[in-house]
Amino acid sequence: MRLFYDIIADKRDKKELSGEDISYFLESYLNGGLNDYQMSAMLMAVFFNGLSEKELKTWVEKMLFSGEVLDFSHIDGPVVDKHSTGGVGDKISIPLAPLLAELGFCVPMISGRGLGHTGGTLDKLESIPGFSVNIGKDRFNEIINKNRMLLIGQTPQIAPLDKKLYALRDVTGTVESIPLIASSIMSKKLAEGINGLILDIKIGRGAFMKTMESGRMLASTMKDIGSRFNTKVDVLFTDMNEPLGLTTGNSLEIMESIEVMKGRYVPQVTELVLRMAATLMVSFKMCDSIENGERLALVKLQSGTVAERFKKTVELQGGDSRVIDEPQKVLPSSKLKKEIFADVSGFIEKIDALSFGKALVQLGGGRLRKEDGINYGAGFVFNKKCKDKVSSGDLLYTVHYDDPDKLQAAFEYLREAVKITDEKCGESSIVLGSM
Amino acid sequence: MRLFYDIIADKRDKKELSGEDISYFLESYLNGGLNDYQMSAMLMAVFFNGLSEKELKTWVEKMLFSGEVLDFSHIDGPVVDKHSTGGVGDKISIPLAPLLAELGFCVPMISGRGLGHTGGTLDKLESIPGFSVNIGKDRFNEIINKNRMLLIGQTPQIAPLDKKLYALRDVTGTVESIPLIASSIMSKKLAEGINGLILDIKIGRGAFMKTMESGRMLASTMKDIGSRFNTKVDVLFTDMNEPLGLTTGNSLEIMESIEVMKGRYVPQVTELVLRMAATLMVSFKMCDSIENGERLALVKLQSGTVAERFKKTVELQGGDSRVIDEPQKVLPSSKLKKEIFADVSGFIEKIDALSFGKALVQLGGGRLRKEDGINYGAGFVFNKKCKDKVSSGDLLYTVHYDDPDKLQAAFEYLREAVKITDEKCGESSIVLGSM
Repeated sequence: MRLFYDIIADKRDKKELSGEDISYFLESYLNGGLNDYQMSAMLMAVFFNGLSEKELKTWVEKMLFSGEVLDFSHIDGPVVDKHSTGGVGDKISIPLAPLLAELGFCVPMISGRGLGHTGGTLDKLESIPGFSVNIGKDRFNEIINKNRMLLIGQTPQIAPLDKKLYALRDVTGTVESIPLIASSIMSKKLAEGINGLILDIKIGRGAFMKTMESGRMLASTMKDIGSRFNTKVDVLFTDMNEPLGLTTGNSLEIMESIEVMKGRYVPQVTELVLRMAATLMVSFKMCDSIENGERLALVKLQSGTVAERFKKTVELQGGDSRVIDEPQKVLPSSKLKKEIFADVSGFIEKIDALSFGKALVQLGGGRLRKEDGINYGAGFVFNKKCKDKVSSGDLLYTVHYDDPDKLQAAFEYLREAVKITDEKCGESSIVLGSM
Repeated sequence: MRLFYDIIADKRDKKELSGEDISYFLESYLNGGLNDYQMSAMLMAVFFNGLSEKELKTWVEKMLFSGEVLDFSHIDGPVVDKHSTGGVGDKISIPLAPLLAELGFCVPMISGRGLGHTGGTLDKLESIPGFSVNIGKDRFNEIINKNRMLLIGQTPQIAPLDKKLYALRDVTGTVESIPLIASSIMSKKLAEGINGLILDIKIGRGAFMKTMESGRMLASTMKDIGSRFNTKVDVLFTDMNEPLGLTTGNSLEIMESIEVMKGRYVPQVTELVLRMAATLMVSFKMCDSIENGERLALVKLQSGTVAERFKKTVELQGGDSRVIDEPQKVLPSSKLKKEIFADVSGFIEKIDALSFGKALVQLGGGRLRKEDGINYGAGFVFNKKCKDKVSSGDLLYTVHYDDPDKLQAAFEYLREAVKITDEKCGESSIVLGSM
């Protein structure tokens, strides 16, 4: 076998690594024969020089087969999941999963936690008292067979190599690399045994991808990986300049999600949920156009069965299922509210997602370090969205908080977060493109 | 203080690091607060993005002051050292140090060991029975005061941060970076308390620097560092396509060095020793031209006092000083010899330094791993040098060896190592340039 040094130096010097080299390097890392400091040098070299298609295939394969690979071949209908690159107010997974289950998909959805200014689906779900995102293998299969969906966190059995690599990337400045991001997401998703994935790539100030160009590169890398492993990957590029929908904060976003599941039209959220469901339906030939798919999905939302499916899921995962009918009673809420009003008239030019994401962390609604606790009730409710007409004195948004000191800290981020202009701005659209 | 992650990410994204960032990062590494895996990611980022002049100054400063800094202000005359980037048959330090001492310099020379295909001065010196390259601080001062020179290895007190960083670079593919090489060499040399440094940058197939261009970059980086720390750095670029002088191998090179010290003209070796001495003399205004300096140095070599100075040094460092008068009796030698003859007539086009360097390792005369032992007697004696006229049947070189299996292994590297051509080649020159 070659020296680790030489394999690192080849990647550093832009020489393509053989499948054997990559397998040996990654296997050695997983079994402890290769040190963290050699792996982090390799990761930084990959950051600079990327991975070729061939290298990437082996890389994903090693991560994917480093642990258990789930098998849903006994299940009728396509098995799908959704992944978002992370944003502010992004609660889409929560209404989408039961909608997809109602439409005939099987949805073993595996989500993540919030970190930094972006929220996490698992944290939001855990604001429902009793709800457990850690489900053992037997119970997992039982729920899937009974309910065709569940909402859980990553298990230690799935892609352990990715877990080990991600922890290292997280402290070595090697997170922001397209092949490393793509291989991390895809290896986990492929290990879930899915046939299809809908990928929501957020673009904008509140997103990891600041430009469409970098978003397109990530999308095409993910689609390539998918096609090499016989998994359909559909991509939507969506706006993340302003917080998604009308709320940010864990309890508040669960309430908003429940409204969507009950058929209420929530700006951006309902639109995106319908579009995603329709995209998957077209992809799996369950309808002939996005428009028809959206129509069918909307009928489901308005029929009440989606909320029922979610209720059943909450029950099966140990949560207090009264949350669907009486969310205000069941969910934790903040003690205090502060309303913010417009001081001029005009049109909303900007509601800055990054600022509101950081402000939410200050309120305790997100975490700066993995070990931080969460204040589930804290958050923001928006009365105005970007491009809206506004008159001086109109309510812009309400802050939900417990601690006046934290409110103060949050406002440090919000001074320039909302901008009102004289001129009418164009129409905004949540979906910027697809691939 | 900033997060380590952010400091790594800044370097990765080509943002200049502040002196505070670099100090914090390097200090944390030395005291264990920063992990190897974070440092190796940083080193790889530096490999790709380099260090600005300002960054480099802080980097060198932190390494230099991470340990003891010697002080020779009580010594008359300039305090100088020499550094070579490493080659095959490079024994220059050994005759140069006593020559410089005889010319009025003080020479606390700190050398290294051989690794890979290049030899090391310390290994060569240790082929002299009893010679110790590890000298305690008190004894160090005693020898310098008495003898104005000594020849030792790096002490643990000098630039410990460089030692720690070098060990990490050595296993993470981050050796071949000009700012990292330059800062490593210069921090150690500056910590010796020298006023001047002559730097021998080897260029060619047997050298780390393959081209003049990369050599010039290293030279200018080292000179910049020198000027920022008030230390004169003179650079010679010298040829390392063929082995230097007439021998490679530890005992054999000591014998050759002693010949040079006794005033015998050894091709390339005497030339380079004179040129280096003269360069330092001009730099410290001890003569007005290189030519005059070389003349003065040659007189010293021929006077016999240089060999006497070396004899005294060997004695002071515990070695068998009869080596100067009876080297053949004192030095370890190989049991067997194999002579290699020319099979055609013509001119020597190539004697490949890299091949002979690797062949020497196979004979046991060098080491592949740091912990390997050395066969001091093994080596090569060359009867012909590049550009020489040769007749079929002429002796080309003699292999000194103990083990026929190792001879076989060595010949694996030597099949194409010597090339004879019909056409007369131009004159060769050991010194390719200076800076």
